[in-house]
Amino acid sequence: MEPPATRRRVTIVDVARHARVSVTSVSKVLRNAYGASPEMQTRVRRAIEELGYRPHAGARALRGQTYTIGVMLPDIRNPFFPEILDGITASLEETDYQVLLGPGCNGENEEARVTEAMIDRGMDGLVLVAPVSSRAHLEHVGTAIPTVVVGRHGSSPAYDTVTDDDFEGAALVVSHLAGLGHRRIAHIEHHETDPTRLAEMPNARRADGYRQAMRVHGLEEWIDVVSTSYTQQGGYQGVRELLSRPAAARPTAVFAGADIVAIGALQAASEAGLSVPGDMSVAGYDNTTFAAFDPISLTSVDQAGQEMGRNAVRLLLERISDHGRPSAKVTLSPSLVPRRSTARPAE
Amino acid sequence: MEPPATRRRVTIVDVARHARVSVTSVSKVLRNAYGASPEMQTRVRRAIEELGYRPHAGARALRGQTYTIGVMLPDIRNPFFPEILDGITASLEETDYQVLLGPGCNGENEEARVTEAMIDRGMDGLVLVAPVSSRAHLEHVGTAIPTVVVGRHGSSPAYDTVTDDDFEGAALVVSHLAGLGHRRIAHIEHHETDPTRLAEMPNARRADGYRQAMRVHGLEEWIDVVSTSYTQQGGYQGVRELLSRPAAARPTAVFAGADIVAIGALQAASEAGLSVPGDMSVAGYDNTTFAAFDPISLTSVDQAGQEMGRNAVRLLLERISDHGRPSAKVTLSPSLVPRRSTARPAE
Repeated sequence: MEPPATRRRVTIVDVARHARVSVTSVSKVLRNAYGASPEMQTRVRRAIEELGYRPHAGARALRGQTYTIGVMLPDIRNPFFPEILDGITASLEETDYQVLLGPGCNGENEEARVTEAMIDRGMDGLVLVAPVSSRAHLEHVGTAIPTVVVGRHGSSPAYDTVTDDDFEGAALVVSHLAGLGHRRIAHIEHHETDPTRLAEMPNARRADGYRQAMRVHGLEEWIDVVSTSYTQQGGYQGVRELLSRPAAARPTAVFAGADIVAIGALQAASEAGLSVPGDMSVAGYDNTTFAAFDPISLTSVDQAGQEMGRNAVRLLLERISDHGRPSAKVTLSPSLVPRRSTARPAE
Repeated sequence: MEPPATRRRVTIVDVARHARVSVTSVSKVLRNAYGASPEMQTRVRRAIEELGYRPHAGARALRGQTYTIGVMLPDIRNPFFPEILDGITASLEETDYQVLLGPGCNGENEEARVTEAMIDRGMDGLVLVAPVSSRAHLEHVGTAIPTVVVGRHGSSPAYDTVTDDDFEGAALVVSHLAGLGHRRIAHIEHHETDPTRLAEMPNARRADGYRQAMRVHGLEEWIDVVSTSYTQQGGYQGVRELLSRPAAARPTAVFAGADIVAIGALQAASEAGLSVPGDMSVAGYDNTTFAAFDPISLTSVDQAGQEMGRNAVRLLLERISDHGRPSAKVTLSPSLVPRRSTARPAE
C-alpha cells in the first residue's frame, strides 16, 4: 500500500543505473547475499544513500521476503527480556532485517493473536520468547514460518530451541544457600498445571531443580514451594504467604524463580519490617541489571540472555534459508552470581 | 506472501456464507465500521471462530489497511514506557488493530530506520514515543502516515501530540525539596544541544522548569545542572560527578530527570556509602513501579503514562479515518508523589 500523494518511488533500477552495476548486483547487496564484493557493496550503498532509495517491503514480499523478524516477548516489564532482545538486535544490525516486537502476551489467546498477526503480515521468521502456548500451536507456527523458541525446553522438528539449563541453575542457588547454612529454603514458583508446560517451561524446570537439589543436600523435609506467578505481584504474594505462617515454620531463605519475582519478595519483606539478608536471604534468577543495582545487590543466576538472543538469530537465519533442515537445540550453562542479599542465617 | 504448503485459506466469502450475511457485513464487522448491529457482530464473530478464519493483512493492504499500529519506543529498559504501552494496548484491545513495537532506537539514524521500516510495511498509523529525530523527519513521517508523537512538545500540522506538562512537573519537585529546607538542589539532565530538541524534548523542559523554579524560590545561586543522559548510567555518572566536588559544594538533594536516572543516582550514592535520604535526598520523574518499590520508595512525578497511551490511540484512530484533519495537541497535568527518598536535609 502506498501512502497518498508521495512522489514516484526510487526503484532498484534507478539505484543500479546510478551505481553503474546490474540490478542483480543491487539485489545481492540488499540481501547480503554471497558474491557481492566489498567494493560493490560500497558502490551500491552509496547510490542507495544518494538517491534516498528504500527497498519496498511489499515489493520484496512478492519475491518471498519482507526482511522482518517478529519477536514475541511475554512481558516487557520483566527486566530479563531486554537482554535477549539486545542479543537479537546486535546480531541483525549489519543485515537488512528489521525486528518488530509483539507485546503484552501473557496467555495462550494473546500469543495466538500475536503469532497469527505476524504470519499474516508476511514476516520472514519468528523468535518466540518463553511462549506458554500448547505444543500443537507452536508446531503450527513453526510449520508455517521459520521459528526459534527461546527459553522453553522440549524440542520439535518444526522449530529450533535455545534454552538455559534451568534445572542446573536452580541447583546452583540451593547449593549456595545450603552452603551458607540454610535449611528452611523456600521456593516461589510460577503456577503450572498443563502437562506439556510442566515438562517444558523454564519455571517448571527450576522448581524441579530446586526439589532435586534439596534432596541431594539432605533437606527433603524442608522442601517448601509457594505457587504464584513470575511477576512482581507473584513475589509479593509469595513472601506474604510465607510470613503468615508460625515463626518456626518460616523460611530463612527464599529462592525466587526470577529477578522480577525477587523484586516483589523484597517489597513484601521490607513492608513486614524484615531486613535482607539479616532476617531472610533472598535469591533471584536472571541476573538482570536490577540484581546488580547496588542498593539491592541480589544474588542471582546468570543465564546469558544476550548469548541466547545471538544463538536464536543464528538458528533463525539458517532456518530462513532452509526451512526444512533438521531442527536444532542449543542449551547454555548458567552460573551463580552471589551478592549481598544472601548470607548466613541468624542463629 | 503465503507460507509454503498451507491448506486453502478460509476466505471472507466462506465466513459470509457460514454466517448467512453479506460479504459487506462481514467486512463492516472486521473494520468495526458503523452500521454493524450487535446481533450481526455476534453472528459474524461466531462464524469467524468456527471456521478459524483470519483476515489476511496482505489482502487487506490491497484495500488500503493492514490493521497494524507501529509503536516506536526509545528504550525498552526505561520502566516508564510500559505504562504508555499499557494504555495503548488496552485501548486497542476491542479492535482488530495489532500493535507492533520498534525497539532499540536511541538516535536519529535508528529512528529513521524504524519509521521507514514501519511505513514500508504498510502500517496504518504510528505512535512515536519521545522521538529525538529532527522536526523535518517527524513531518515527513506524519505526512506519509497518520502519526501521533507522545512525550515531545511543539506541534505540527503533520501530526498530533500528547505530552505531560514537564515544566510544571519539574517545578513540583523543586517546590517539594525547597519546602523541606533544601537549598543546594542539583539536577541531572539529558544532554541536549540541538535547538529544536532544546525547545521540544521533555528533558529540556524539565531542566528549564527546574531553573525557573529555583529562581522562584530564591535559590538562583544554587542552580546546579549536571548534563549526562536519561539512562541508569547517566544517573550514576551524574552523582559521581556531584560527589567529586569539595564537601561544601555538594548538593543535599538531587532531582534526577527520570526514574531510570534516579536508579543510577541511588547506585552511586550507595557505592559511596551515603544513605538516602539521611545524607542526600533523591527525587525522580515518571512514578514507575520502581519508584513505588518499598525498599527504594522514590519520590517521583506521576505523568499518567497509561492516560498518555489512551489519548494517543484516540487521536491516532481519528487521524486514520481522516488523515487531513487539523492537528491536535493534548497536554496532561503531572502530580507529585512524595516518598521516603526525600526528607529534611541534615543540620
